Amino acid sequence: MDHLLEKTLRKKVLFEGRVIDLHIEEVELPNGKTSTRELIKHPGAVAILALTDDNKLVMVQQYRKALDKVIVEIPAGKLEKGEVPEKTARRELEEETGYACETITPFISFYTSPGFADELVHLFIAKGLKKIENPAGLDEDEFIDIMEVSLEEAVKLVEEKKIYDAKTAYAVQYLQLKAALGE
Amino acid sequence: MDHLLEKTLRKKVLFEGRVIDLHIEEVELPNGKTSTRELIKHPGAVAILALTDDNKLVMVQQYRKALDKVIVEIPAGKLEKGEVPEKTARRELEEETGYACETITPFISFYTSPGFADELVHLFIAKGLKKIENPAGLDEDEFIDIMEVSLEEAVKLVEEKKIYDAKTAYAVQYLQLKAALGE
Repeated sequence: MDHLLEKTLRKKVLFEGRVIDLHIEEVELPNGKTSTRELIKHPGAVAILALTDDNKLVMVQQYRKALDKVIVEIPAGKLEKGEVPEKTARRELEEETGYACETITPFISFYTSPGFADELVHLFIAKGLKKIENPAGLDEDEFIDIMEVSLEEAVKLVEEKKIYDAKTAYAVQYLQLKAALGE
Repeated sequence: MDHLLEKTLRKKVLFEGRVIDLHIEEVELPNGKTSTRELIKHPGAVAILALTDDNKLVMVQQYRKALDKVIVEIPAGKLEKGEVPEKTARRELEEETGYACETITPFISFYTSPGFADELVHLFIAKGLKKIENPAGLDEDEFIDIMEVSLEEAVKLVEEKKIYDAKTAYAVQYLQLKAALGE
């Protein structure tokens, strides 16, 4: 697949932030011409499809400045440097929902925006949820409401565009597929 | 849900690019404290799940500089200013695969990375594909290989992480769900 590759000729770091970095790369295209790529570097993230013993999905409702909207998502968070995704997933589940879980199992990972960003999200399914007495708190700039909804309610939230992001839409569809297959 | 909102106090445009812009916003949090948000502005995109008459999925294989990987995706592209998504979808399908389609139907839209970006992707399903004699060409910095795969092959590509992005993983799972429901 070498005929598809782009060679980096020059790289410039335009911004290094708390969450993302912005790099501009000048590349040599497969036909020898040059172009520039605007690239966002992100540490990666986890998202957790957490199911209660009575099969409710634990969701968080939060304001997203990028969208200027309050949307409903599965709990999620950025990877800390050197942290394995499962540890991040257990931590974020506790911080955002106050739940610990007996099992937490990865079921897919995907890049969210391969055209411009390297953000890779790892999705986990968590079961055997137990409320923790004194859970670790949220980050100081995080404000969320917790909801517990049935699969039918989650599907309705997707239709109403209250669930409106890729990872959460994927997770809801994953449960629909499991249900349709009788698993 | 006012108790979740963040008010923008100051906004700075750090970068305006061909594909993305980078804004930094200083916000007032619900508790009155301040924080900063690193936000990527993106024009939005379409992606097309194109099915041939013998039920193959039309995929494009391309190098993604952000990932430094060649991955397999459904055809996709950015919205042009003022363009309705269906028009973009028909154009990108033609440019990337050489196919026109009889029907093109939206089935979901989602934000790819609500934590930092406003990119909204509109997914369409295209049927009644016909090869065009002289299709519009690719953008001058696009190099792709076209593949036509069965649903089973697409599921395998997801497992092998050759299909590795949110929109394509969602689209494959969508077809799996339709198949499981006998639709």
